[in-house]
Amino acid sequence: MTRPIPLQRGPNSPGLDNPGRRALLVGSAGAMASVSLLGFTPLARAQSAMTLPDYAAWKDQSALIVHSANTMETRRDAIGSGVLTPSDRLFVRNNLPPPPADVTDQPDTWAVRIDGVKNPKTLTVAELKSLGVVTVASVLQCSGNGRAFFPHGASGTQWSVGAAGCVMWTGVPLKTVVEALGGPVAGATYITSTGGETLPDGLDPKTVVVERSVPTRALEHALLAWGLNDEPLPRAHGGPLRLVVPGYYGVNNVKYVKRVAFTEQQTDAKIQASGYRIRDVGMKGAPDQPSMWEMNVKSWITAPLSESRPGRTMIYGVAFGGSRAVAGVEVSTDGGEHWQPARFLGPDLGPFAWRPFVFATDLSAGEHRLVSRATDVDGNPQPEGRKDNERGYGHNGWRDHGVTLTVA
Amino acid sequence: MTRPIPLQRGPNSPGLDNPGRRALLVGSAGAMASVSLLGFTPLARAQSAMTLPDYAAWKDQSALIVHSANTMETRRDAIGSGVLTPSDRLFVRNNLPPPPADVTDQPDTWAVRIDGVKNPKTLTVAELKSLGVVTVASVLQCSGNGRAFFPHGASGTQWSVGAAGCVMWTGVPLKTVVEALGGPVAGATYITSTGGETLPDGLDPKTVVVERSVPTRALEHALLAWGLNDEPLPRAHGGPLRLVVPGYYGVNNVKYVKRVAFTEQQTDAKIQASGYRIRDVGMKGAPDQPSMWEMNVKSWITAPLSESRPGRTMIYGVAFGGSRAVAGVEVSTDGGEHWQPARFLGPDLGPFAWRPFVFATDLSAGEHRLVSRATDVDGNPQPEGRKDNERGYGHNGWRDHGVTLTVA
Repeated sequence: MTRPIPLQRGPNSPGLDNPGRRALLVGSAGAMASVSLLGFTPLARAQSAMTLPDYAAWKDQSALIVHSANTMETRRDAIGSGVLTPSDRLFVRNNLPPPPADVTDQPDTWAVRIDGVKNPKTLTVAELKSLGVVTVASVLQCSGNGRAFFPHGASGTQWSVGAAGCVMWTGVPLKTVVEALGGPVAGATYITSTGGETLPDGLDPKTVVVERSVPTRALEHALLAWGLNDEPLPRAHGGPLRLVVPGYYGVNNVKYVKRVAFTEQQTDAKIQASGYRIRDVGMKGAPDQPSMWEMNVKSWITAPLSESRPGRTMIYGVAFGGSRAVAGVEVSTDGGEHWQPARFLGPDLGPFAWRPFVFATDLSAGEHRLVSRATDVDGNPQPEGRKDNERGYGHNGWRDHGVTLTVA
Repeated sequence: MTRPIPLQRGPNSPGLDNPGRRALLVGSAGAMASVSLLGFTPLARAQSAMTLPDYAAWKDQSALIVHSANTMETRRDAIGSGVLTPSDRLFVRNNLPPPPADVTDQPDTWAVRIDGVKNPKTLTVAELKSLGVVTVASVLQCSGNGRAFFPHGASGTQWSVGAAGCVMWTGVPLKTVVEALGGPVAGATYITSTGGETLPDGLDPKTVVVERSVPTRALEHALLAWGLNDEPLPRAHGGPLRLVVPGYYGVNNVKYVKRVAFTEQQTDAKIQASGYRIRDVGMKGAPDQPSMWEMNVKSWITAPLSESRPGRTMIYGVAFGGSRAVAGVEVSTDGGEHWQPARFLGPDLGPFAWRPFVFATDLSAGEHRLVSRATDVDGNPQPEGRKDNERGYGHNGWRDHGVTLTVA
């Protein structure tokens, strides 16, 4: 088992000799109990079962903050400086409980209905696999990543920076599938996808179904993915099949996708009509408000996060452009007074991937406010502030994302 | 724990719903016993302990062929089609037993002596980390990968294709370290590195020490690495510190490196003087024979490997150029009579990385011999045959690396 011990966790990280040995989070972030997965202690196992839901029990608990059974965030100190996020460190955000465990037992038999094309058809994953294959790296990020930084107390999971990761998706380009079926019908303006979760009884399906519409321009990069980081897509992340729309917020990447339709209108499902809409604080969601589609440019520091020694210091972080490639990133150690360019670390995985970065500097004793500011290839920089909005979506302001470092 | 279930292992791969659930290799490759790492059965644990040595107990046994306590090969069907090899699938080849388990407890305190420079100095990993950092993807491959295909029965581990993987290394460029120490002394022709293994008593150290020399041209890309796939370098792979020479065979990537010296001559250690030398079958090793330094262009099929159904078939594999980038790869389904270009899959991680590839074709019922042939950027193609040599090194002939597929 590849164990996520981010390089910046320092010399006391557990399990260095044996990546199978991990520290389990016990209560506070600081309290750790060393555990060997090849000699699991009942205590540790109990703690693990208590904290992670069954469908995500394979995750690395020491790398996650478990907000609820459907929301798990990657700890800031577990993001690391790698080009890819290991699956067991990747955040989880489900709008509904996942389908039964056996949904991924025979992934090739899962079927997805393609409508709104010349020749509508239901295709199994096995059939999709024979149509074509691509592997694309992209940042998966929840619309509410950074919500914790909004002072008005936006409702919803209080994500800090860890509702994001950069992963490799393997699947067939949606374009290839659609072209094989004669192309979209005339007048198609949206791609509307429906998740295969079991809907709770006694509720109007429209109020709970995960059905999202994205503009047809998303067809250029969208794929129907059966693989995550070169493994079959786990149920926790939408397996057996997920619509992946590189550059778009997480909610548009419909899990357990059972239908993809080219439509003239957006779906009237609540999650689309009033959910995931940017509006002023206090306002209700409505279809005429901006939907959480393309992501914006963003970056944050991943190490060091709290303390370091005086002298030469390597500051690490991640930066991405969202719906377009990131061009560069700057770092300031005085809260934004002075900026210097940081250097990208590792290979470029493409326009939708993040770039780990590093900035070498000399720090004197005292407190330093570390902030980073990325700019995308179109010249859009991260803003300093945040755009306050009712649900706390799309926060990419650099000031709130900084960290205060004590050098002593 | 990210579980390696290569996408091509098919719909019956274990642990699809929960990557934590793995199949353990029990005897033959076919016989599997499902195991949950979060509910480890005593039986499975015993089998695991029996088969994998302690220092590699964290590896994914279902992905490995354990030849000995110091030699573990990645199963051909576990190589997958990803751009990176997860650490727990990566092959292991140690020339000596690794240092004690506590060697990686405080990795930042490990020290390496740099000699043959203007200002020789001993530097700790902590000091190296403040000098600079790069992350480089490179293929790690044993000189003997493919040895099993030599008909003369070359002595040594009978590696098939799995003594190779593509991983990310994080460390400081050796060049940066050397420049900080005034540069190499005049007349330096080789970089000679010494491993920190404990040498067995009663033997002439020169006959057992892992000490290798590479030409100083290797300085251009070499690094002192403390990270593997964004985790602290595990002991099984040379942690806390390893010399990594991208494009060079595995043996030159000295583990637990305790000394790096710029020298006029190659070391007279046996592993350099007579070991890892290309010579005719029956001949003894000698310093005037070619040393196993730069790797050559190579590729092989990873799926399907034995059986498939008639019709549309996706053929997967990996290709790399060795000491230079790979330019392309062709696939033949008739044993090399007719060739067609395959397509690279996923992002390019740089000149020393491998490129997964895919080739879509229609297969009729019957037997098909699948072979692949890569060409590097200098136009060097994989040869058809092998260069027979005493120890079975450097085999990159495409014919022996093919697979026979039964389509029914």
